[in-house]
Amino acid sequence: MTTAATIQADVLHTFVEKIFVNAGVQPEHAADAANVLLYASRRGVDTHGVRNIQPIYLNLIERGILNLRPNFKIERETPVSARVDGDEGLGLAAGCWGMRLAMAKARQSGIGLVTMHNSYHYGAAGHYPWMALSEDMIGISLTARFYARDRDYGVMPTFGAKSSFSTNPISISFPTLAEPPWLLDMSTSTVPFNRITMMRDAGQSIPLGWGADEDGQPTTDPAQVHYLYPLGGTRELGGHKGYGLAMMVSVLCNVLSGGWDELYGDDPMAFEGYKLKNDGHFFGAIRVDLFRSPDEFKRGMDAMIRSLHDAPKALDHDRIYVAGEIEHETELKRLRDGIPLTPVVVAELRAMAEKYGVPLEL
Amino acid sequence: MTTAATIQADVLHTFVEKIFVNAGVQPEHAADAANVLLYASRRGVDTHGVRNIQPIYLNLIERGILNLRPNFKIERETPVSARVDGDEGLGLAAGCWGMRLAMAKARQSGIGLVTMHNSYHYGAAGHYPWMALSEDMIGISLTARFYARDRDYGVMPTFGAKSSFSTNPISISFPTLAEPPWLLDMSTSTVPFNRITMMRDAGQSIPLGWGADEDGQPTTDPAQVHYLYPLGGTRELGGHKGYGLAMMVSVLCNVLSGGWDELYGDDPMAFEGYKLKNDGHFFGAIRVDLFRSPDEFKRGMDAMIRSLHDAPKALDHDRIYVAGEIEHETELKRLRDGIPLTPVVVAELRAMAEKYGVPLEL
Repeated sequence: MTTAATIQADVLHTFVEKIFVNAGVQPEHAADAANVLLYASRRGVDTHGVRNIQPIYLNLIERGILNLRPNFKIERETPVSARVDGDEGLGLAAGCWGMRLAMAKARQSGIGLVTMHNSYHYGAAGHYPWMALSEDMIGISLTARFYARDRDYGVMPTFGAKSSFSTNPISISFPTLAEPPWLLDMSTSTVPFNRITMMRDAGQSIPLGWGADEDGQPTTDPAQVHYLYPLGGTRELGGHKGYGLAMMVSVLCNVLSGGWDELYGDDPMAFEGYKLKNDGHFFGAIRVDLFRSPDEFKRGMDAMIRSLHDAPKALDHDRIYVAGEIEHETELKRLRDGIPLTPVVVAELRAMAEKYGVPLEL
Repeated sequence: MTTAATIQADVLHTFVEKIFVNAGVQPEHAADAANVLLYASRRGVDTHGVRNIQPIYLNLIERGILNLRPNFKIERETPVSARVDGDEGLGLAAGCWGMRLAMAKARQSGIGLVTMHNSYHYGAAGHYPWMALSEDMIGISLTARFYARDRDYGVMPTFGAKSSFSTNPISISFPTLAEPPWLLDMSTSTVPFNRITMMRDAGQSIPLGWGADEDGQPTTDPAQVHYLYPLGGTRELGGHKGYGLAMMVSVLCNVLSGGWDELYGDDPMAFEGYKLKNDGHFFGAIRVDLFRSPDEFKRGMDAMIRSLHDAPKALDHDRIYVAGEIEHETELKRLRDGIPLTPVVVAELRAMAEKYGVPLEL
């Protein structure tokens, strides 16, 4: 990655929040949005960081697509659950609202599960389980779009030739004591699409099992890729398991929330055109003390993590990582040294600074 | 598979139940055990069916290892959760008891989550979520053993050279209306070990990404395989995601239940030898009507399944399956035509018939 500038995390945070406010987002939603984006940019999840402000979020706002005064409506509720209508609002704010609702229910009842439809892109899936860590809860978040008809750059079902799923991430967190928080944030595809475009731009071929061409045939030429394989790749390497996980995510986010069949009804052929607002989310919060004292649990987590650190290493490797560990180290480094920005992102930040009248020194 | 005999499912069910009773298992536990094993044998999950009776379950009983009068003890409990001590009992019965507890809590409170330690092999993970379907609940089950020191035939962490995990399956079910129940039951390894021994016996090589040799190096020679890769295989094909899922399962089954650190404490080096009773389980039941009317949800499931059936197919494929569909078709066929048994299984069933005095006609 070429670094054109470096900026302190808190300075960037304040800037991002002000941009959203000046773009018309209500202040508390702008604060949430900045939290989600800076979480990703601090931790090196740059695909989901500030580089998305212009192409995804401001783009939706400037085209008048986003509802800037959404009323997140609880449509059905119990002490342990809720189904929510995201009201076509900013997904970054809807996501925080949904996760806080799950955590509030967990605080009262031990567990809170929330499914949400009618939302937009909610950013890095990992941010939401990360919110649960400070209260000694297990956090869960999933997000999905289901395509009844194929669309480029989605994930194929096993034996399919076109895509049916978005990359449908799964994220879950477990609190720890001295070790970094355990936090898994994984798409259910083999790789994200931008990994393939990076290989294309570098003139390199890709392994079989990453992507398929427009006819759904496996290819090693990144320029030919139209569809992604589910985790595992081909059937032979377990791709049907990745496909199963992808569909599980679509069910919990899109069928359970009512977001999918409200658009398509029972007839899959009724689908005409992709609607971005069809993003569904699923949030879970589970109090660790339902099962054990949090201190005992966290000591057990630390012990399991250490035994993986201490396990025998493969040739040419001197470390075994656990989920969230690399991101944690990146966060410590970036909090100290600042967040590196590519030339494209620097140009975008400067343009939005001017457009929305928020001063920025880079 | 060579078929030496075929037997009607209900005849085999009665036989298996009587074998367990005559081997000293209490009648209600024998009934549960037969349910779990016949579920697998009916549905073509033969790796987890009646072929395991002698090598796993009777073997544990005959060696005096299993507690034949276990008292499944609830150690901590809320209206939505429980932590249970399996009391070294038959895992097939402990599993049914744990899943029924999760379902009873869900009936009262909407959700029930149960973690269990100190149990043994619980059979096919899919049986437990399958129990939840008849009550319009989402069912979840996981099972895991964690090896603080390596052991042959387990699953390696990414960049590791020895195994840390059992194949740590994930199973989840969603009820449907006219379509077969959606039921995912997947190990978090690329393939199960017996797939590798089958290739070895057939004199075939295996793809890179299935297994590693005794030094943890990838191999295409099935005779050299000591360890399995997590789902995805190598790091390049997403194996770190399969590793993350495997560890998630170990945490929910072994750390959350207290089963792991009770044996090892904080010191991973304290582990001396593998203890089979360190099996942990996790069960979940979630009432669909927390979120939607079950009929609406099930119509949505049917519509999503049909749109996958109708999606464009890869070259040389004329069907796209959803999770549980192949097993459902096998079950219909075997209920009609009987369950095929290999020569080895026929010999084992005849031997146990004689040893435990239960007549069997094959």
